[in-house]
Amino acid sequence: MGDIFRIDGYRTQAGLEFDVLLAYRTLGNLNASGDNAVVVTTSYSGQDDEAELLIGGEQGIDIDAHYVVLINMISNGLSSSPSNTAAPFDGPRFPRFTVHDNVACQRKLVEALGIKHLRLVTGFSMGGLQTFEWGCQHGDMVSAILPICGAARVSPHNWLFLDGVRAALELDPEFAGGSYASAPEAGLRAFARIYTGWALSQTFFREAQYTALGLDSVESVVGFVYDYFARRDANDLLGMLWTWQHADISKNDRFGGDFEAALAAISARAIVMPCTTDLYFTTADSEIEVKHMPNAELRLIESTFGHFVGGGQVPEGKVVIDAAIADLLAT
Amino acid sequence: MGDIFRIDGYRTQAGLEFDVLLAYRTLGNLNASGDNAVVVTTSYSGQDDEAELLIGGEQGIDIDAHYVVLINMISNGLSSSPSNTAAPFDGPRFPRFTVHDNVACQRKLVEALGIKHLRLVTGFSMGGLQTFEWGCQHGDMVSAILPICGAARVSPHNWLFLDGVRAALELDPEFAGGSYASAPEAGLRAFARIYTGWALSQTFFREAQYTALGLDSVESVVGFVYDYFARRDANDLLGMLWTWQHADISKNDRFGGDFEAALAAISARAIVMPCTTDLYFTTADSEIEVKHMPNAELRLIESTFGHFVGGGQVPEGKVVIDAAIADLLAT
Repeated sequence: MGDIFRIDGYRTQAGLEFDVLLAYRTLGNLNASGDNAVVVTTSYSGQDDEAELLIGGEQGIDIDAHYVVLINMISNGLSSSPSNTAAPFDGPRFPRFTVHDNVACQRKLVEALGIKHLRLVTGFSMGGLQTFEWGCQHGDMVSAILPICGAARVSPHNWLFLDGVRAALELDPEFAGGSYASAPEAGLRAFARIYTGWALSQTFFREAQYTALGLDSVESVVGFVYDYFARRDANDLLGMLWTWQHADISKNDRFGGDFEAALAAISARAIVMPCTTDLYFTTADSEIEVKHMPNAELRLIESTFGHFVGGGQVPEGKVVIDAAIADLLAT
Repeated sequence: MGDIFRIDGYRTQAGLEFDVLLAYRTLGNLNASGDNAVVVTTSYSGQDDEAELLIGGEQGIDIDAHYVVLINMISNGLSSSPSNTAAPFDGPRFPRFTVHDNVACQRKLVEALGIKHLRLVTGFSMGGLQTFEWGCQHGDMVSAILPICGAARVSPHNWLFLDGVRAALELDPEFAGGSYASAPEAGLRAFARIYTGWALSQTFFREAQYTALGLDSVESVVGFVYDYFARRDANDLLGMLWTWQHADISKNDRFGGDFEAALAAISARAIVMPCTTDLYFTTADSEIEVKHMPNAELRLIESTFGHFVGGGQVPEGKVVIDAAIADLLAT
């Protein structure tokens, strides 16, 4: 079981004051100097248990030596979310939180835990968005970052893919503008069907590599993705989706939209880790980012599993993630 | 203005008898020996005017020397379609036609026109599906084929992308199972929004290459694609989509699903022409096809315009298409 951290009157980038609850869970113990900590952020619809997959296992982080903080993203159903917030901010009335807001809140939690320094921040997918934000805005306390299948900002194409799944979900009359009486199942099924085409690669489907996941058909992959998303409330999904669509480390007072300057401000050692067949967090975007970062290495996950490979559930991805974490913690 | 060719009692692969109307248009004149003909097939939602873009222009086919037949696909709004067929086969009750059915009908038209031999069959996208079918089933009368951004069968991933846009359109309550009173606009808008992410590449959006098309934003590209599809009736779109989802040159009595045998039967000289950044008709699929074809060359369109580049509207694609047509007609 995790804990809840409360931030009274957090002021969002949009200017709204809101009492934010961050759900988190820790592993291991903080050392006396407060500098053996690692933050792991969550992915789209993922919660702390899935974040743990990134750093767990035999080759994962040594919990006897580190203090790991797994932090749930706002709107993921455990931290403050449309589904768990009382009126007047419930459901479709829940405020918009940016990645910048998320990480500003995460920093308050980290400080409240007595952490002086983070040896590593990592995360998969939307966790990668948060990881870049940590490196950019909180370089004073971060030694290393490992964004996995993520980016420093949403690309226009990624924005569009997300807007397509959003549009499909909202078409379901049961969705009722977010004021649904029960889950908009048909909308969620279309959402998952469209999303599935993006989350895995063309080769994955051509070669029926889903059998490695215990699935036996394209339709069963769609069902797997549906089950994955339908665990979450529809407004929670759309809240996180809005966060994703507006991700950009430079969209704040400090950088005023100067993306290259924001990348240049990431002084932490970074391993930027896209997958070669990811259809939305592309290697080309990562290459551009690394070019402008002073202390970054591009390290590819060579895989035909597409975006999905970075979640820690696919062995050929996990081994690359493990090695990068070991490299970053060794310095 | 084009002409209409009627085929009484065509028996579909599914076993239904139907009087098929094929809309077509010709350019140039058939020579005395009946062997200077070229067939150009149509793409998804495209009609003969767009097919003409592939072979037109200064570097296009010499109409003084060739007899070009532009043939509209079934369900494209000009040939027999849900939108122009009387009860009991109107709207959602329109029969399912495969690519095999389409080309079997096209052959009857070609013979009725007095054509003895086709020097070339070409087409873009779904036109590429039909082009492969011509080469496979009608090798007795075809010298050369040029499938542009197409394939010999729908890939599982391509099927899935199509199923996503289908699902979105059908979610619109206005669609009413195909028995709509007026166009299901919201569904068509979601359909176009999702489709746009597939039709062009990630780089196209990152580098704002839509300005080359006179468009100024991601949203304006979505609008462009919406206008492109919303010209067509929704049931027509879904009829063509079903045809696409079931495309496979080997799914017939002759080959019984043996895809490699069907490819091996394509004796015509072939230039298989995918685009390097096409997200659904991928170069990897084309490579597999060419490997099994006895007389085929893989010739890439190197472009960041994705699938769209093969339609003849983008200069960097058209110049490659023109050269391939010239090569194939020169032999």
